[in-house]
Amino acid sequence: MVDQLQIAGESLGSRLILGTGGAASHAALEAAIRASGTALVTVALRRLDPAAPSLLDVIERCGVRVLPNTAGCYTATEAVKLAHLAREAFGTAWVKLEVIGDEDTLLPDGVELALAAERLVDDGFVVLPYTTDDPVLAQRLADVGCAAVMPLGAPIGSGMGIRNPYNIALIRQKVTVPVILDAGIGTASDAALAMELGCDGVLLASAVTRAEHPARMAEAMRLAVGAGRLAYTAGRIPRRLHATASSPAGGMPW
Amino acid sequence: MVDQLQIAGESLGSRLILGTGGAASHAALEAAIRASGTALVTVALRRLDPAAPSLLDVIERCGVRVLPNTAGCYTATEAVKLAHLAREAFGTAWVKLEVIGDEDTLLPDGVELALAAERLVDDGFVVLPYTTDDPVLAQRLADVGCAAVMPLGAPIGSGMGIRNPYNIALIRQKVTVPVILDAGIGTASDAALAMELGCDGVLLASAVTRAEHPARMAEAMRLAVGAGRLAYTAGRIPRRLHATASSPAGGMPW
Amino acid sequence: MVDQLQIAGESLGSRLILGTGGAASHAALEAAIRASGTALVTVALRRLDPAAPSLLDVIERCGVRVLPNTAGCYTATEAVKLAHLAREAFGTAWVKLEVIGDEDTLLPDGVELALAAERLVDDGFVVLPYTTDDPVLAQRLADVGCAAVMPLGAPIGSGMGIRNPYNIALIRQKVTVPVILDAGIGTASDAALAMELGCDGVLLASAVTRAEHPARMAEAMRLAVGAGRLAYTAGRIPRRLHATASSPAGGMPW
Amino acid sequence: MVDQLQIAGESLGSRLILGTGGAASHAALEAAIRASGTALVTVALRRLDPAAPSLLDVIERCGVRVLPNTAGCYTATEAVKLAHLAREAFGTAWVKLEVIGDEDTLLPDGVELALAAERLVDDGFVVLPYTTDDPVLAQRLADVGCAAVMPLGAPIGSGMGIRNPYNIALIRQKVTVPVILDAGIGTASDAALAMELGCDGVLLASAVTRAEHPARMAEAMRLAVGAGRLAYTAGRIPRRLHATASSPAGGMPW
Repeated sequence: MVDQLQIAGESLGSRLILGTGGAASHAALEAAIRASGTALVTVALRRLDPAAPSLLDVIERCGVRVLPNTAGCYTATEAVKLAHLAREAFGTAWVKLEVIGDEDTLLPDGVELALAAERLVDDGFVVLPYTTDDPVLAQRLADVGCAAVMPLGAPIGSGMGIRNPYNIALIRQKVTVPVILDAGIGTASDAALAMELGCDGVLLASAVTRAEHPARMAEAMRLAVGAGRLAYTAGRIPRRLHATASSPAGGMPW
Repeated sequence: MVDQLQIAGESLGSRLILGTGGAASHAALEAAIRASGTALVTVALRRLDPAAPSLLDVIERCGVRVLPNTAGCYTATEAVKLAHLAREAFGTAWVKLEVIGDEDTLLPDGVELALAAERLVDDGFVVLPYTTDDPVLAQRLADVGCAAVMPLGAPIGSGMGIRNPYNIALIRQKVTVPVILDAGIGTASDAALAMELGCDGVLLASAVTRAEHPARMAEAMRLAVGAGRLAYTAGRIPRRLHATASSPAGGMPW
Repeated sequence: MVDQLQIAGESLGSRLILGTGGAASHAALEAAIRASGTALVTVALRRLDPAAPSLLDVIERCGVRVLPNTAGCYTATEAVKLAHLAREAFGTAWVKLEVIGDEDTLLPDGVELALAAERLVDDGFVVLPYTTDDPVLAQRLADVGCAAVMPLGAPIGSGMGIRNPYNIALIRQKVTVPVILDAGIGTASDAALAMELGCDGVLLASAVTRAEHPARMAEAMRLAVGAGRLAYTAGRIPRRLHATASSPAGGMPW
Repeated sequence: MVDQLQIAGESLGSRLILGTGGAASHAALEAAIRASGTALVTVALRRLDPAAPSLLDVIERCGVRVLPNTAGCYTATEAVKLAHLAREAFGTAWVKLEVIGDEDTLLPDGVELALAAERLVDDGFVVLPYTTDDPVLAQRLADVGCAAVMPLGAPIGSGMGIRNPYNIALIRQKVTVPVILDAGIGTASDAALAMELGCDGVLLASAVTRAEHPARMAEAMRLAVGAGRLAYTAGRIPRRLHATASSPAGGMPW
């Protein structure tokens, strides 16, 4: 039995979703996509240059699917509108829904996000929302019909890893749709940890595209996602203060 | 160019060293050794049953080298004596040197360890000492001629991961011999982190042998060590409070 | 110049707000209130026993103000209604606004919270909302006119401390109203850290009322809030890998 | 009953020991000593200027005891010699024993430290060794007759807090002499945490002397040490994933 990521009834050949922003060149991006083993890459409609559509050529050549995103939107109205444009432009009903609430941190605006998600689900989209690590908001997004929820580990581009693993674990307990860790990943161990917390996949961009050696980091991420998934299903040993301690380490006072 | 672990002038085909303690059966151990891709496994002379030497048969069948250890020794004198016995029994001058200072935590005794290491180096051994995460002790062990240093991440069997990554990073800066993270690894992300801190390899046992599915966890560790090594050499992005922050996250007050 | 907490133009004689839930007896609560030095205690209208109003007697005897809360509400409508009842019952327009989104974790529901906050501000209340640690939601609550924002450190009653100090620091940077750390405090160092992150006050209940010795823990919290506030304004030394390191510790790879 | 720190049969009126290095002026130091409430300050014999003994005047004026240290020594021999000089110069048999193993990090050399401690105990000193956070070394130092052990939280002057609280808690479990957290404290919450881990006292210098407002930080530390001690004895609530979770938070997989 193959252990594959399933979203909206479709199997994806990889649990790693790659963002395309930040790459130094199309050649570098192509090498990274191939090394990552991804089956799905995000593209910002806003950043596409109509006169030079070679980004889409790269993606097509790599044989991976496109997941349009609504990067740059600050209200539900904007995001819904852009999602419709993206559906026409890319011929796909899948959308990574971003509604940003703060231009410094690029953190999502949960209120607008929930509004936009509800409308897009009604309009027949397969909605994958980029959200905070709030379990209640994640539950609300799942309840309105999102096909997955994509909580952040830390702000976009921060490379800070998963600041609050407890919330990610709580989200995994609460919702039944796939959970994709989105944003914050800085290095391979962050991606492995996301999977060990029970995430079904990881979405990352700048950790690969802005690394000194993007293709090498992409391969590292491919291995790390595989390692984390295997470890999650392998049943790890408990954490104890030491091997002969009679109780788990959580009994300590901090 | 192949990126291999080199100890005492010899190349090892894997950066993962596997301990053999804790396995439920020889069959389970064999599956784990194969899945881990390791080239070197540790064996406790004390735990070998002379009447049933099948552990060594397993190891031979897997085609991996043996690294005898001095588990169970509490003084330099005991450890040196056991190392000599092991050299005769296994026909190898390599030894994982353990001198335990506390029977609850199985933490090493640095003073006795330094004494034993010096004597064994003088006696022609290739000494790989299991040590604390103290950079000064690691430097002393390297200075007396140890072929590598093997600091702990956390107590043996605790599964607590790397409690003090700063010390591991300091050790990596101080010594020129290989640094092998030994003890404390609980899951794949711990192993990846060890490599990202600059360790040259990882030694683990119970994280694999006592996992619910040892062979699966062994494969997870194989991938994680590879992921961490690639990430270390790929040049990760810096950690920042958010993408547009002008300074690294270390400027925060905690 | 006295360094006092100011909310809605009023000075409070303490930066510690105490919840009254969980106390073993009114005598224990009274001792804790006195030892804490608090000037403001929260009371759940829902939990008041009309036949035994002695909780209010205790509070009056201690000479502290009452802050009614809307604990137990799951929708904006419920919370608004309860706030109005509380205003009549307690003769105060101040309200700690709680709108819960999940009965296991008692985490707030950001969408309903924002709705309720807006209505209560319109109705002339001084609104102090219990919120997630999401900086964007905190900004929204401040924008609609809340007199302070009260982000959680961790779930109510968890004693887990501040799971994501980065978010608390971001909230402090974003909003101009007072920030009160509410929920998650388990021990004195948690309260000190909250203040060092720039919080203007701390709200806690079970850390005191359910401690083995509530009055002693209340005194610990009083000292800790004072310590953290002083430390915040004293200009701490930077964090460095070691004293002679040329750059702050944030440069490390994890 | 007064809860006082007892070392070598003597009661000290404060659990905070203050180092005198790093102060901008004697006036600043005097203000800090007074604000800290300390009863014992360390002085480096090496740094005393025989022509300007005003540091000792400051200390005398403040009515606190002197604890000479052996800062700057790199071998047991040096440290023992300096301790004898200090005993004559200051008329006290108490000594803070430092034997440094690395000039960048100023980390202690455990092997030399143990040697020096044994000799000084034999020579009738009350020995308070600055040591690593290694529980086995701490046990050894207590076994040879040290009056207390003083493990580091992080390197001297780093302000990194307590990098490995597990080790400090293990030391507290192992030894029966007082445990004083020495080095690494950066801010008030670090000092409170040290006490909550069961330390009997805290020694700090640059966190106060190099803060922007030393006297204010000294007062913060005084309150924090008191807060942490009270919290330690007050019986804190357990840490749980959330209030209704049936098991402590240590059950989580990281």
